[in-house]
Amino acid sequence: MTGLLTDLYQLTMAAGYFEAGKASETATFELFFRRLPRYRNYVLAAGLAQAIEFLLNLKFTSEEIDYLRGLPQFQRVSEGFFDALRCLRFTGDVFAMPEGTPIFANEPFLTVRAPLIEAQIVETYLLAAIGFQSLVATKASRIVEVAGGRAVVDFGARRAHSPEAGVLAGRASYIGGCIGTSNTETGFRYGIPVFGTAAHSWVQSFATESEAFARLQDLLGDATAYLIDTYDTIEGARTAAALGPPLWGVRLDSGNLVELSREVRRILDDAGLTNAKIMATSDLNEYKVLEFAAAGAPIDAFGVGTDLATSADSPTLGVVYKLVELDGRFTAKFSEDKQTLPGAKQVFRFANHDVIACSWECLGCGPGEPEAKALLRPVLLGGKLCEPLPTAAAARQNAADCVKRLPTAVRSLFDTGQDYRVEQSHELMALYEKVHDESGLLRHRHAD
Amino acid sequence: MTGLLTDLYQLTMAAGYFEAGKASETATFELFFRRLPRYRNYVLAAGLAQAIEFLLNLKFTSEEIDYLRGLPQFQRVSEGFFDALRCLRFTGDVFAMPEGTPIFANEPFLTVRAPLIEAQIVETYLLAAIGFQSLVATKASRIVEVAGGRAVVDFGARRAHSPEAGVLAGRASYIGGCIGTSNTETGFRYGIPVFGTAAHSWVQSFATESEAFARLQDLLGDATAYLIDTYDTIEGARTAAALGPPLWGVRLDSGNLVELSREVRRILDDAGLTNAKIMATSDLNEYKVLEFAAAGAPIDAFGVGTDLATSADSPTLGVVYKLVELDGRFTAKFSEDKQTLPGAKQVFRFANHDVIACSWECLGCGPGEPEAKALLRPVLLGGKLCEPLPTAAAARQNAADCVKRLPTAVRSLFDTGQDYRVEQSHELMALYEKVHDESGLLRHRHAD
Repeated sequence: MTGLLTDLYQLTMAAGYFEAGKASETATFELFFRRLPRYRNYVLAAGLAQAIEFLLNLKFTSEEIDYLRGLPQFQRVSEGFFDALRCLRFTGDVFAMPEGTPIFANEPFLTVRAPLIEAQIVETYLLAAIGFQSLVATKASRIVEVAGGRAVVDFGARRAHSPEAGVLAGRASYIGGCIGTSNTETGFRYGIPVFGTAAHSWVQSFATESEAFARLQDLLGDATAYLIDTYDTIEGARTAAALGPPLWGVRLDSGNLVELSREVRRILDDAGLTNAKIMATSDLNEYKVLEFAAAGAPIDAFGVGTDLATSADSPTLGVVYKLVELDGRFTAKFSEDKQTLPGAKQVFRFANHDVIACSWECLGCGPGEPEAKALLRPVLLGGKLCEPLPTAAAARQNAADCVKRLPTAVRSLFDTGQDYRVEQSHELMALYEKVHDESGLLRHRHAD
Repeated sequence: MTGLLTDLYQLTMAAGYFEAGKASETATFELFFRRLPRYRNYVLAAGLAQAIEFLLNLKFTSEEIDYLRGLPQFQRVSEGFFDALRCLRFTGDVFAMPEGTPIFANEPFLTVRAPLIEAQIVETYLLAAIGFQSLVATKASRIVEVAGGRAVVDFGARRAHSPEAGVLAGRASYIGGCIGTSNTETGFRYGIPVFGTAAHSWVQSFATESEAFARLQDLLGDATAYLIDTYDTIEGARTAAALGPPLWGVRLDSGNLVELSREVRRILDDAGLTNAKIMATSDLNEYKVLEFAAAGAPIDAFGVGTDLATSADSPTLGVVYKLVELDGRFTAKFSEDKQTLPGAKQVFRFANHDVIACSWECLGCGPGEPEAKALLRPVLLGGKLCEPLPTAAAARQNAADCVKRLPTAVRSLFDTGQDYRVEQSHELMALYEKVHDESGLLRHRHAD
C-alpha cells in the first residue's frame, strides 16, 4: 500500500529527518483523543486490522518517488532520501488495545515505536483508518444497546463517505454489534453476514405489486422480505399476507412506523403468519429506535443506514498521534489547550475505572491490590505480526463483553453527568512536571 | 472494479430480473436529492469522474461469483445468472451535469439508461461516490466564499472517513475552490497542488525550537512555513523572525487566532518580513473563517481539516437513485413523503431559476424565449466515454463560474429564507398526474 496515503508534511519531515541524520532515531508516538466526541460517553476502538495491514504493506513505487522528486518542496532534498524511500518498510513495534475495547479521553490506544522516519510517515493513515471505524463501531453499539436484543443491520453503504468507507463501515458496524450488513464487499472481504432482498425499483419493475412479491418469494423462499410501501403500506401488507409462506417477513420504509407496524402485525397474524418478522428502515438512528422500543412497536429488526455509516450526530473524532519519546528522551507539547503527556504509557482497567500509567509501571499486579488489566498489548514487533489479528467476529465479541461491564450511566445514550473515571498514575504526573520544567529551562537557556 | 461494491439487494434483484427474463429491459434511473442538506442553500455536484471510472471498469471475478453462489440468498438462482455476471460490463448511457455545477432539491443530476440488471447493480457505488464528494465540494465552496480571496487548503486527510475518503475529499475540496490539499495521494492521482511543511513532532524532535526552524528553512527555502505554537506562539514567532528570509511564513495552530495573528504580524513586520504570510489552522470551518474576516485578522491562508473532509455540520446528503422508466413505461413511487416524478428529465437553467422538464422538452431555445442551458449532458453512450472527462481543475473553474452567478442570498452561509427557484414544466406535471392515476387504476384492478 502506497506511502503517499499521507499528508505531504509527513514526507517533508521525513526528508528533513533524513538530511539531519535523525531518520533512524527511535521514536514513540501515541494515538488518543483529548475529548470524547459530542454525544458519546465512550468510544469503541476499531480499525486496527486495517491500520496493521497498511503497516505490513507500506512501500513507495518508483513512479511515486518520481512524483515526489518533482514537487517544489523536494528540490533541496538529496538523492539519498529517495533511495531510502525506495527501500522503506515498516520495521517498528506496535502496541494496541484490541478492537472492540471501550476507550476514553486521553487514553493512548495505539502506540508506535519505530525509526522516526517510519513512525512519522504512517500517522495520517493510522488516524483515518482507526478514527473512522471507531466512530461507526461506537454508533452501532449505541443502536444495538437500545434495540434490546432486536437485530440491527447496517444499510449505510450508499451514504458512507465514499464506497470504500461503506465497506469499512460495514465492518465497524458489525464490531459494534450489528448482526451484519447490506454491503456485499464487506461480506466478501471480512466474512461478515450480508443481508438484502429487494428495493422499490423491484416492485415498480413489475406490472403489479403482487407479481413482484410472488417473483421475490420464488427467488428467496424463506429469506423473502417484502418491501411493502411502494404504493401503500397496508395494501402491501395484505398482498404479502395473501401469498402466505414461505417468507422471512416484511419491511416498512416510510410513514409512521409505530402505527404501521401495529397494523401490519395484525394483518400478518390474522393470516396465520405469526412467525413473519417486521423490519423497519427509513433514516433510523438510536434515538428513533429508543422511541420504538418505548412505544412497544412490534418491530423485530432495524436496518440503519445513513446515520450509522456517517455517525451523523457526531461525525468526527479528534484522534491525534503525538510524539512522546525520541531517542531515549521524553517529549511533550505544551501548546495552549493542546498539551500532551510525555513518555510511552500503559492503560490499566480496574473494575470501574482506568489508570493511565508510565509504560514501565505495573498496577493491579501486586498481592492484595485490586485486579487490573493492561489494555495495550503487542501487535507488531520488529515489523512482524506477533500473532494473527482477531477476526471481526472476535472483535465483536470483545465489544459485547466489554460494553456489558460498563456502568449503566456510561452506556446511556445521553449525558448523565457521570463520566467514566480515568486517572493518571503518580509516576506519570511526576514525569509530566519534570519534562515541563526542563522544557521551560530549555527555552529559557535558548532565549539567553 | 468489483461489482460487489454494492448492497446485496442489488444483486438479489439482478438475479430475480434474470430469472424473470427482465434483465435486458431498458431501465432509466435518476440520481437526485429530495431536500437540500441541513445548513446548505446549494450543493456542488462532484464525484462524477469516480462514478464513471467505476462504470467503465465494472466486472465480477470468478472468486467473487463463487462467493455469491455460496450465499443463502442465491441458493435458488440458476447457473445462467452467474454466467451472466461473469460477462457483465456496463453497456448503457449516462447523462450528467458537469462536476462543479450547483444543484438543488429534486433536480436529477445524473441519469443512467441501461439494461435493468446493469443499472440496478451500480446504484450503491454511484450514490456513495457522488454524494460524498458533493458534500465536501459544497463545504469547500462555503469556506472559500467567506475567505474572500485568501487561500484555503484542505488538511482533512487524517479525519476523513477512511484513508480513501481523505484522498477523494482532497479532490472534492479542490473542485469547491481550495487551492490544494495536504493529501499526497490526491496530488499524485489527480494532479492537484499539494502543501505541507512540518508538524509539532518536528519541533519536538530537535533540542530547541530554533534548531528545528533552522533545519526546516535549510530544507524548504522560500516554501518554509514554521509551526510556531509547540511551546509558545509569541516566542515561536520571535524565533522565526530572528532567522529572517527565506521563508513563506508561519502557521498558528492554537489559542486566540485573532489576537495572536495581530501580534505575530507585528513581530514579522518589525523584523522586516512584511511578505511573510500567516496561515491559521485548528478546527476551522466557514463560521470561524467568517469571524476572522469580520475581525480583520491579518491571516493570509486557512488550513481546514476535520470539518471540511467530513462536512461536519451537515455530514449526510440524501441522494437517491430512482427508477423513472422501464421498457418504455413511465414509473414512479407514491410512498408517503417519498414520491418520485416519472420519466427521464432534463434540467434547464435560466438566468435566476431552473425548470425541471421532460427529457424531450426544449426550453429556452425558441425565438424570443429567455435563454436557458440544458444541464444534463451525455457522458457515456453504449458504455463508452463520449469525450474525456473534464479534469479536476476544469471542474473547479466550472464551480467558480457557476457559484459567482448564484444570487447572493443563495451564496450566504445562512438560511436567508430565499431559496433558489426550481419549477417543474407543465408537461412534467401532466405526466405525473397521468402516471399517478394509472397506478391507482392498476392497484384497484388488482384488488378486484
